[in-house]
Amino acid sequence: MNDAALQAQSGSDEADPPLYYRAHVFVCCNRRPEGHRRGSCAAKGSEGLRDYMKARAKELRLQSVRVNAAGCLDRCEFGPTLVIYPEGVWYSPKTREEVDEILEMHLVRGRRVRRLMLTEQDRPSPKG
Amino acid sequence: MNDAALQAQSGSDEADPPLYYRAHVFVCCNRRPEGHRRGSCAAKGSEGLRDYMKARAKELRLQSVRVNAAGCLDRCEFGPTLVIYPEGVWYSPKTREEVDEILEMHLVRGRRVRRLMLTEQDRPSPKG
Repeated sequence: MNDAALQAQSGSDEADPPLYYRAHVFVCCNRRPEGHRRGSCAAKGSEGLRDYMKARAKELRLQSVRVNAAGCLDRCEFGPTLVIYPEGVWYSPKTREEVDEILEMHLVRGRRVRRLMLTEQDRPSPKG
Repeated sequence: MNDAALQAQSGSDEADPPLYYRAHVFVCCNRRPEGHRRGSCAAKGSEGLRDYMKARAKELRLQSVRVNAAGCLDRCEFGPTLVIYPEGVWYSPKTREEVDEILEMHLVRGRRVRRLMLTEQDRPSPKG
């Protein structure tokens, strides 16, 4: 397909549809074997935190919020990790109480829980 | 915690960190039992498409792009489904060729593949 055909097809002057979920939460539920040097979010309890977050979001009747499990988000060293889109804010909650804080502050009030957020510096070491 | 304390802690006047991934793709890999009335993305081949997309993104050396599997995104009727954040654009590719189109058009060129996109109207019927 040439560029003109691609452009005609892509209709890039149309706006994207509105967001389907106002907040889409992905909780890393990847599990690596015990003793792996990077660790993994599931080994740090992410599955239970994800189940709790999903149940609480439902109880709070948060509209247009979805909590999903996801495969490895590749920030294992800082896990358990989750990311909230479209804003792309990452958190590392260790307990149910911290999940509650994220629900109340971020998802209900539209604010942030700074001390639980990952920063730009929270990156895995280069491989090798 | 009272409101003032929450506010002090939230530091809402600070900007969020920059996006960790410029494009974060989530491919629904939920599998329901055969014959379920809503169907499921995995039953429609999403796992293979996700493996392919991940491998191709790597081969294309797409920088700061991550392709993840996700649990049920709840648009099963329109599957296989995937969503790309932060833009929140949803696609339903049925074949590897369609995955290639999304990679080339959306992730490389920053455009859209309109005919494969889900629309606002693509919602499950109300339950019951």
